Amino acid sequence: MSPSGEVWGVGVGPGDPELMTVKACRILEAADIVAYPAPFEGDSLARGIAAHHIPPGAEELPIRISMDPRRYPQTDVYDRAYREIAMHVGQGHKVVVLCEGDPFFYGSFMYLFERLSESCPVEMVPGVSSLTACAAELAFPLAARDDVLSVIPATLPEEVIADRLGGCDVAAIIKVGRHLAKVRRALEQAGLSQHAHYAERVTMAGQRTKPLTSLPDETVPYFSMILVHRRGRAAS
Amino acid sequence: MSPSGEVWGVGVGPGDPELMTVKACRILEAADIVAYPAPFEGDSLARGIAAHHIPPGAEELPIRISMDPRRYPQTDVYDRAYREIAMHVGQGHKVVVLCEGDPFFYGSFMYLFERLSESCPVEMVPGVSSLTACAAELAFPLAARDDVLSVIPATLPEEVIADRLGGCDVAAIIKVGRHLAKVRRALEQAGLSQHAHYAERVTMAGQRTKPLTSLPDETVPYFSMILVHRRGRAAS
Repeated sequence: MSPSGEVWGVGVGPGDPELMTVKACRILEAADIVAYPAPFEGDSLARGIAAHHIPPGAEELPIRISMDPRRYPQTDVYDRAYREIAMHVGQGHKVVVLCEGDPFFYGSFMYLFERLSESCPVEMVPGVSSLTACAAELAFPLAARDDVLSVIPATLPEEVIADRLGGCDVAAIIKVGRHLAKVRRALEQAGLSQHAHYAERVTMAGQRTKPLTSLPDETVPYFSMILVHRRGRAAS
Repeated sequence: MSPSGEVWGVGVGPGDPELMTVKACRILEAADIVAYPAPFEGDSLARGIAAHHIPPGAEELPIRISMDPRRYPQTDVYDRAYREIAMHVGQGHKVVVLCEGDPFFYGSFMYLFERLSESCPVEMVPGVSSLTACAAELAFPLAARDDVLSVIPATLPEEVIADRLGGCDVAAIIKVGRHLAKVRRALEQAGLSQHAHYAERVTMAGQRTKPLTSLPDETVPYFSMILVHRRGRAAS
């Protein structure tokens, strides 16, 4: 137990436990309470990545998010998790919240952060994001020199995706999931289909990478990404 | 010495040695040859970050980049470094090239990668980028849900910066350096000045962060960044 309580948002990287930072390991190993996002039933990805560094005596606090927000509103989930974490901090505990990838890069941590940061200091440990991990696994240099790089969620409407593709040199289209057909059409509109590379579950068991043109039409996992460069590749 | 030679591009993170990944440390500790970018005179930032993990017997190969490309063309520098690294790989050595931040995120490594990847396999270790490190140090949640995030080099013309700012929800303007006045004007044009946050040398000695409105007009370091969100902050 620390003399005064504290909260840490700790990025655990894209999946390979070795892509945790030295700092993430150290902070986690000194935790009193370890919180992490988890599905309503089943295992937490973030916990799985960091499992080896969770101290044996730590209390675990899964933050279970339902895929059916009508039945279980997410604001209620984060409000409840916030209250529980704040209580532990008030008791002088060190609380570590594990975050897949980086805590502030499209992560659910920011909903907790908003609530927590009003009542107590929150320390952050940045992590390797899925963006740079995908680039590494695809051997795809992302951006150089004057390149504008845009990260575009596949959840946006087709026209918006196509428009945003037109305003950058290199794009990462994230959260492809069930939006693959729409993303293909947007890339076609932008004249970029031939240059697009697809990756899913990077650095994890079941990783798959291929040129988008050779990917069958199917629903792909939520943890998937398409990288595309206007010139084919970032060039010297 | 490895039975067959290999090359690794290893991201060492934004500056704090503890933000190296466990994998980066392990790969570096088994290197025969350690290469890294360095100024023409003086110390290499990447080497400084990773120094503690360079094995005592390793041969070091600084890749010295002049700030005056007329006198010392950079293509010559990378051609020469490529030939030297390829020679070591041919002799069965394990060569690790250290890269500040992430190797494929606006790093100079990609010029070596282009040359090397044609003649030998190059293994990559992604790193924590300055983007997520800045967000952590500024306590600035970058992007959530449908947010489009753009990374915009400050070296671009003012009108291009303003235009690209108009096409995203959150922007990271990188390499601010001597372009601060121009970037301010572009942010003003885009109506975003009030929301902008400035950071330099994040996670290193001499780190400085402040709202852009309270930063004096001056030349700032090359390793500096401005983060700005259309809504002020990524919100739930």
